[in-house]
Amino acid sequence: MMELQPVASLRGKSITSAKQLTRAEIDALLQLAGAMQRKVESGEVLNLLQGRIMTPLFFEDSSRTFSSFCAAMIRLGGSVVNFKVETSSINKGETLTDTIRTLDSYSDVLVMRHPRQDAIHEALAVSRHPIMNAGNGAGEHPTQALLDTLTIHAELGCVDGITIALIGDLKMGRTVHSLLKLLVRNFLPKCVFLVAPDALQMPQDVLDSLQQEIAAKGVLIRRTNVLTEEVMQQSDVLYATRLQKERFTASACDDAAAMRSFEAAKANITIDAARMRLAKQKMIVMHPLPRNDELSTAVDADPRAAYFRQMRYGMYMRMALLWSVLA
Amino acid sequence: MMELQPVASLRGKSITSAKQLTRAEIDALLQLAGAMQRKVESGEVLNLLQGRIMTPLFFEDSSRTFSSFCAAMIRLGGSVVNFKVETSSINKGETLTDTIRTLDSYSDVLVMRHPRQDAIHEALAVSRHPIMNAGNGAGEHPTQALLDTLTIHAELGCVDGITIALIGDLKMGRTVHSLLKLLVRNFLPKCVFLVAPDALQMPQDVLDSLQQEIAAKGVLIRRTNVLTEEVMQQSDVLYATRLQKERFTASACDDAAAMRSFEAAKANITIDAARMRLAKQKMIVMHPLPRNDELSTAVDADPRAAYFRQMRYGMYMRMALLWSVLA
Amino acid sequence: MMELQPVASLRGKSITSAKQLTRAEIDALLQLAGAMQRKVESGEVLNLLQGRIMTPLFFEDSSRTFSSFCAAMIRLGGSVVNFKVETSSINKGETLTDTIRTLDSYSDVLVMRHPRQDAIHEALAVSRHPIMNAGNGAGEHPTQALLDTLTIHAELGCVDGITIALIGDLKMGRTVHSLLKLLVRNFLPKCVFLVAPDALQMPQDVLDSLQQEIAAKGVLIRRTNVLTEEVMQQSDVLYATRLQKERFTASACDDAAAMRSFEAAKANITIDAARMRLAKQKMIVMHPLPRNDELSTAVDADPRAAYFRQMRYGMYMRMALLWSVLA
Repeated sequence: MMELQPVASLRGKSITSAKQLTRAEIDALLQLAGAMQRKVESGEVLNLLQGRIMTPLFFEDSSRTFSSFCAAMIRLGGSVVNFKVETSSINKGETLTDTIRTLDSYSDVLVMRHPRQDAIHEALAVSRHPIMNAGNGAGEHPTQALLDTLTIHAELGCVDGITIALIGDLKMGRTVHSLLKLLVRNFLPKCVFLVAPDALQMPQDVLDSLQQEIAAKGVLIRRTNVLTEEVMQQSDVLYATRLQKERFTASACDDAAAMRSFEAAKANITIDAARMRLAKQKMIVMHPLPRNDELSTAVDADPRAAYFRQMRYGMYMRMALLWSVLA
Repeated sequence: MMELQPVASLRGKSITSAKQLTRAEIDALLQLAGAMQRKVESGEVLNLLQGRIMTPLFFEDSSRTFSSFCAAMIRLGGSVVNFKVETSSINKGETLTDTIRTLDSYSDVLVMRHPRQDAIHEALAVSRHPIMNAGNGAGEHPTQALLDTLTIHAELGCVDGITIALIGDLKMGRTVHSLLKLLVRNFLPKCVFLVAPDALQMPQDVLDSLQQEIAAKGVLIRRTNVLTEEVMQQSDVLYATRLQKERFTASACDDAAAMRSFEAAKANITIDAARMRLAKQKMIVMHPLPRNDELSTAVDADPRAAYFRQMRYGMYMRMALLWSVLA
Repeated sequence: MMELQPVASLRGKSITSAKQLTRAEIDALLQLAGAMQRKVESGEVLNLLQGRIMTPLFFEDSSRTFSSFCAAMIRLGGSVVNFKVETSSINKGETLTDTIRTLDSYSDVLVMRHPRQDAIHEALAVSRHPIMNAGNGAGEHPTQALLDTLTIHAELGCVDGITIALIGDLKMGRTVHSLLKLLVRNFLPKCVFLVAPDALQMPQDVLDSLQQEIAAKGVLIRRTNVLTEEVMQQSDVLYATRLQKERFTASACDDAAAMRSFEAAKANITIDAARMRLAKQKMIVMHPLPRNDELSTAVDADPRAAYFRQMRYGMYMRMALLWSVLA
């Protein structure tokens, strides 16, 4: 039996931002997640967190993050208390901090998703146990950025030196913000294509915050609003995000115009079978899911479609995180 | 300690239809469920599925099926991820197949109830792990048919040779369709009374699909819209289903007429204390529950009322199924 | 390793009212809860209830009671079936008693909260396993009264001889009714201040039911509608409950008048930093939570603020109860 090693420096810590992690910690998490995968796939039953309790606190809908955190805790031998915001004292006006204090009284770790960006910091101020940020509004989603990195690492063998295209709603998507920051700060990507309609391009302040690393590491940053032949041919990773029609309605003069604008923008960046014929043999398509039409189901059967495997890497990364934090 | 034997031929298989099971498999499941009952009643803690995860995916309300599947998994030593359709990415438009792929990424077995009949087949097409059909619209509910068979077997000592009355809404009730098919195909029922208002009788196509077996085995099929003295006296099993007022409204000219029609139909088939005085001493009353007035609470204290024990047989049958599928 | 002793006389019993418990049983529960606390805090994994199933059945919102019962069961090594009223057959008109029978079929213990006072008795009439009353309308909330007693015992070292002020909505609050009854019947409180607006004072029938014990034990009962200097100076325990604006609206001639009346009443009884300067050094502030403005967040950092620790005592008391009932 292999011996698992938790990432000792994370013990007792909350995971709130991809920014808090060093390259050494990320590398150790990638190793540990890989080891977790081998344990689970060999059918080994882990009792590393027996008797420990995780409580999820989700103020927004979730399928993957919620389920994979629960599965990760259970596969480590731990348990989950199924607190439900909808049927809690929050309906009686209880504040977020009092709710956090409550769940913190009974639990060893909390997992929180909240639409407000500062909610995670309010929660941290009153909690005695670690909190895993499962998405704070337009802020961060650090465990997603880590599982994305694990997917690239596991599928391509390395993260340094890759060309990656971030595609879709780059303006509002916390997923692509977190991933871009994590990659540029900790790795050596060769080139990043930012593929989005002008109105949904990567915010300048995100790029500004990375200016020093981009310059020092010589990362090429290329903006485009079409998923061109060049992008398709050069990319090792296509990372698509959901394009939401609602984003187009507000700025358009009428619904019909908005719809035409949306359809045109979508056609420019859709990943479909035709475009996939231009891509390398060794490359992967990723998506945090859920998807809309920007990622055609015709690609699902392509072995380069990594977005379903990506979900399973999420469980392994969350196992690595939960164990390191609670070990 | 007795040794439990899983039904080996079910290993790794989805349970989607009562039709898929052979008589030998059904007999083995009846034996195994009985063994599970003895284990649980003796207080033995089973660790047969330690570290394994079941995820229920219920698109329709459920009390018994949901709770007994969860209890079955837990009593086998396994765990449950409490995915909730209501607070999932389904609200963001995620398709059924992408949702299935998600839960399939983290789980060892799924349990699905869905209002659409073909949903189970869509799910099976993308899932790598077994799926237990917990009701697919007007289609099937195979684990219910199996627990019903277990109830008859455990309470009466045999299934062959019985006279059974199916009572209530025989038109829409997937429960009675599945049970009738399972019994006629795999056992030798002597006589089946179909007791329902004309508008809610057993669909002809269900009977047609069984024509060959009915003829070969000489099963008597008798339609009536009154729960007569003869039915009461001859039946070894009265299997009632819920009569829903809504079913009468659509076809009637006005609400008052519909109500009178409903009340008259109900009175004709209600199982009450008076009718129970006509029944054999050794016979059982069954109902999948929930019930309306068609099954009087005055019968609850009658030792022949098996419908509460029937729920507990459901847990044992689901233990037998889950272990056989996952062993 | 210390040996835990369940309270043997509670084995197999439902916990429906604080009234059912003797002083000896309460003392034993206080000891056992303390032992549970030491076990949990030392990181010991308990397997006392391995393989046993608790099903919560909450018809009203809950954060603390729900989560701490779940955490208690899990920390004892047991499991929870996450039945949800909202997605159950209750939507198809299933009665409470049939729902109880269902969950009772699969579970070893039920935990029920219901808005109707007599629901708990209907449930007990049909259940074969113990039921823990987690609040029955305006009736009782016995596990809350017990955890309140544990908090006083653990924080002050004794319950006899204390002066306690019950503050806020004393009319409708089942929490303060249960606590007052438990203290007066089983302990020797020196003085009880009842601090509430006249319209929300302790109902006379609650006091009448305790008349004999109050007289025999010489307990001073003092009504006031202001949290006075005297009350602050003399109290060992300030027990505040939530003041709800809605309670003032019905009886007032207009909303503005109701609001003024509410604000004035609230100002009279609010626990804030200024009033806390009048209190003893060794005393505690308690609150069942959730709170409104009647308990200022400015008090949270005061070491005498015991209301957050009170939540954690709730988990230990429920561990003591669940194990005693199921041992």
